[in-house]
Amino acid sequence: MKSTMMQVPLSTNQILERAGRYFGTSDVMGRRPDKSIYQRSYAEVYRRARQLAQALREKAGIAPGEAVATISWNHAWHLECYFGIPAAAAVLHTINLRLTPEEIAYIMVDAGDRLLIIDDVLLPVWEKVRPLLRQPPRVVVVPFGGAALPGGYESFEDFIADDAIAYQYPVQDENEAVGMCYTSGTTGRPKGVVYSHRSMMLHAITGCIPDIFGIAGRDKILVVTPMFHANAWALPFSALMVGADLILPGPHMGGDDLLELIERSQATIAVGVPTIWAMLLQSMEATVSTRPLALAKGFRMLVGGAPMPAVMIERFAKFGINVVHGWGMTETSPIGSFTIIKTKHDALPPEQQYALRAMQGVAAPFVDMRITNARSEEQPWDGVSTGEVQVRGPWISGSYHNAPDHDPEKFTADGWLRTGDIATINAEGYMRIVDRSKDLIKSGGEWISSIELENLALKHPAVAEAAVVAIAHPKWDERPLVIVVTRPGMELDGSTLRAFMAPHLARFQVPDDFEFVESIPRTATGKFLKNTLRDLYRHRQSITPG
Amino acid sequence: MKSTMMQVPLSTNQILERAGRYFGTSDVMGRRPDKSIYQRSYAEVYRRARQLAQALREKAGIAPGEAVATISWNHAWHLECYFGIPAAAAVLHTINLRLTPEEIAYIMVDAGDRLLIIDDVLLPVWEKVRPLLRQPPRVVVVPFGGAALPGGYESFEDFIADDAIAYQYPVQDENEAVGMCYTSGTTGRPKGVVYSHRSMMLHAITGCIPDIFGIAGRDKILVVTPMFHANAWALPFSALMVGADLILPGPHMGGDDLLELIERSQATIAVGVPTIWAMLLQSMEATVSTRPLALAKGFRMLVGGAPMPAVMIERFAKFGINVVHGWGMTETSPIGSFTIIKTKHDALPPEQQYALRAMQGVAAPFVDMRITNARSEEQPWDGVSTGEVQVRGPWISGSYHNAPDHDPEKFTADGWLRTGDIATINAEGYMRIVDRSKDLIKSGGEWISSIELENLALKHPAVAEAAVVAIAHPKWDERPLVIVVTRPGMELDGSTLRAFMAPHLARFQVPDDFEFVESIPRTATGKFLKNTLRDLYRHRQSITPG
Repeated sequence: MKSTMMQVPLSTNQILERAGRYFGTSDVMGRRPDKSIYQRSYAEVYRRARQLAQALREKAGIAPGEAVATISWNHAWHLECYFGIPAAAAVLHTINLRLTPEEIAYIMVDAGDRLLIIDDVLLPVWEKVRPLLRQPPRVVVVPFGGAALPGGYESFEDFIADDAIAYQYPVQDENEAVGMCYTSGTTGRPKGVVYSHRSMMLHAITGCIPDIFGIAGRDKILVVTPMFHANAWALPFSALMVGADLILPGPHMGGDDLLELIERSQATIAVGVPTIWAMLLQSMEATVSTRPLALAKGFRMLVGGAPMPAVMIERFAKFGINVVHGWGMTETSPIGSFTIIKTKHDALPPEQQYALRAMQGVAAPFVDMRITNARSEEQPWDGVSTGEVQVRGPWISGSYHNAPDHDPEKFTADGWLRTGDIATINAEGYMRIVDRSKDLIKSGGEWISSIELENLALKHPAVAEAAVVAIAHPKWDERPLVIVVTRPGMELDGSTLRAFMAPHLARFQVPDDFEFVESIPRTATGKFLKNTLRDLYRHRQSITPG
Repeated sequence: MKSTMMQVPLSTNQILERAGRYFGTSDVMGRRPDKSIYQRSYAEVYRRARQLAQALREKAGIAPGEAVATISWNHAWHLECYFGIPAAAAVLHTINLRLTPEEIAYIMVDAGDRLLIIDDVLLPVWEKVRPLLRQPPRVVVVPFGGAALPGGYESFEDFIADDAIAYQYPVQDENEAVGMCYTSGTTGRPKGVVYSHRSMMLHAITGCIPDIFGIAGRDKILVVTPMFHANAWALPFSALMVGADLILPGPHMGGDDLLELIERSQATIAVGVPTIWAMLLQSMEATVSTRPLALAKGFRMLVGGAPMPAVMIERFAKFGINVVHGWGMTETSPIGSFTIIKTKHDALPPEQQYALRAMQGVAAPFVDMRITNARSEEQPWDGVSTGEVQVRGPWISGSYHNAPDHDPEKFTADGWLRTGDIATINAEGYMRIVDRSKDLIKSGGEWISSIELENLALKHPAVAEAAVVAIAHPKWDERPLVIVVTRPGMELDGSTLRAFMAPHLARFQVPDDFEFVESIPRTATGKFLKNTLRDLYRHRQSITPG
């Protein structure tokens, strides 16, 4: 029997039309570099996004499927790019403005960017990139800072000035590319992930459901997650689909800045990563000593990008703020899983509820998830067995741009993405990340979690910081090396720390190798630079008996 | 540029797997014909649906794409059919148990039903249908009532008894048929609408968003809408997708029965049609005179199938119950539009808010909507101009089963569904149905709404009932005939009523033809039988001057 349903391709243009028709009075509230506030209605965003689309096709000659890059903070112009570039059948390529000039040049060539839209305040970034490119793209400059444009640059406002009332969207298949992001892998070259209209639409509607972001037309969403990271979790698409207002903070993301914006806008949802929320929490805790917080009723927070500790979730709960935890990556659009608290969990003691909320949760609708061991055997959902998280679904990447179709390091033979995260899944289906695959210590066919050893070492009162990496062993292949910074004025040696840790570990997990150092190298976002540590101790041999 | 996203087809089997893996402890609470209560976990539904799928393929030899019919109330076995039939790659054909035997026989032949699953308590329906069929299908009987099975019938429990742990879903394209329903058109033969895996999945996830049904894993959903009407608004699919509990009422749908079930189950959402909710409202109002209602916190109601008057929405609001209004039909899966109350509406006076809630609302995400006049010209969204509602989208039917591909009565040349509903759309995009297309009076190239004339006539104190249909006119083609039942003991004539109505109408809308009768024929659900009325007055000529 044949279905009688219409064959209507999914397209983000449908969201743009919807925003223009139904939600013209909803708006973006944004903050400029000088911290002044502006507002722009979706009626305006609709009109201007269509003007951008027309200009890209008619003035710049962008052909369907060609990439148009942005180097921008979170603001209304960037939102116009989110819709206007796809409306031209072009590919929205959002570039991480914190990459090195060499990395930006590399991905611009790899993506084949034909045009770059960049903030005036970020032109110094571009000026370091341009000399590295043989054929620099046309550059259009967003007047975000608002100062006079340097000579030789074309203004976004001039570029989109022409009326586009009669503009017609190109007809496209739903599997055509709508956007792309590069992974910021710590090893190897950045790799391009290319989203389709279909994947983006499925992701955008799924993000709206109550158990994920829970977005209604009444909501006001503060998007702290950069719009150059995994489509800002597709929130711009979700928001305009249902008519929710957006609050876009621009470059100021300190705790006090965000608290001021949350109170002023009466945001109902805020979305970001744990490091930013840690700063916000400090501001909130400092502020309540002088006055009560003026949060919107039901204000809630969503966190992803890295695990948020249960204790931080609990501290937010003291302000009546519910934190929902998600997990994902560039390759997963990014929603992979999220935590849900069901009625049956209400009876759990608070600390168990916080522990549940700190897990990475259950797979999103449309996403299949499994964990497998080093021999590709699927592992049981018992909360103890660990394995690599693998996912599959219509918004999960199955390859990389300009890369051979099958890379066994990244994809399984049966077509699942290998995320490189090592996790357990409990009987209820809640996933908990225990380590990154490359940070695991593979010792005698068993896996040892670097994170678990680090957390255990940190419980010793003399330990200020601890990082664990693998070093070579002739029999066991790898053994853990515990690198420790002691607290000022405190003494500690390896055998004392070993004796402290051993009772909490299986015998094969007990480390024998210790290194005491002044400091441990970290990334800008505070993560240990484990590649650097591995390089540093590359020639060290473990003393574990064979 | 090519998208790198995985090509993963949408399938309702993904929901079934999800329910089994993540939501095994969620459940159905149901009521049997003797009003006793049972519960069944989704772990059980998962296991049994897969057993049904295996039995359909292996015992009954059902091939992919063949139809399997159900004649059933809302209960856990029917839920197993919702998932088990598609899991066999067969097509879930839910039959309206209130149709005549001739209609049921007609649609069973039209669908090519290979097997029928029917409630024991509904076997008397089947026994009237069977003699009308040359090749009756295999019949499997659900022990819903629980009495001993009459001889010669096969039990559902025996049919699905075999273990299906190793059952593998057939591989299917997402555009393959998953289910079908027949329209209950008042004119002509019933017509089959065939849903696809793709349409059902898109509809199921969209139904979960906060502005439509707003379904979270914590919810308990009372589905009063029959599971044989437009997939019960796809709620069984939405519920198992997110792990919400279901409450299935079986055959008892009186107001007291439903109130008892709502309180006992602590339902958070109830979904049904206005006639049922009118009975529930009466029970609620009668009950509060003796005791407070014991509703779950945040209990809310969804209504569709026919417009609910603003006054009824207001009466529910007195119990703190929020009613959300939807509009749709079998051909629209069924979600077409729904009402949303945005922050800006909070400042409106209550009566305007109730009026807004009584409208049919804004088109759902993925659905495009327009109104066009008799000359197929799109009408402005000004709240005044009327036109036929036309829709387009991935879960809208573009043809009928076994029918020529293009029927200009039902579909436009550019591929939109003609719904036959006449409506206005205001500047905010809120649609309001003013009449059915076939009930409009087409007078001199203008449209006159029968519903508006009826509502106006009803304002006269001597009018008990009023129905308006078109009668012939040599010059104006059609003119309205107002058929009136007067209140007992009151006198009224046509010229008096005409004088009462005229000041509120444009000149061409003022009726000249009146008929005073003892009663007006109605359907079982209380609607006027306008076809019967039109037949009755077929030869009457209007007295309007030419």
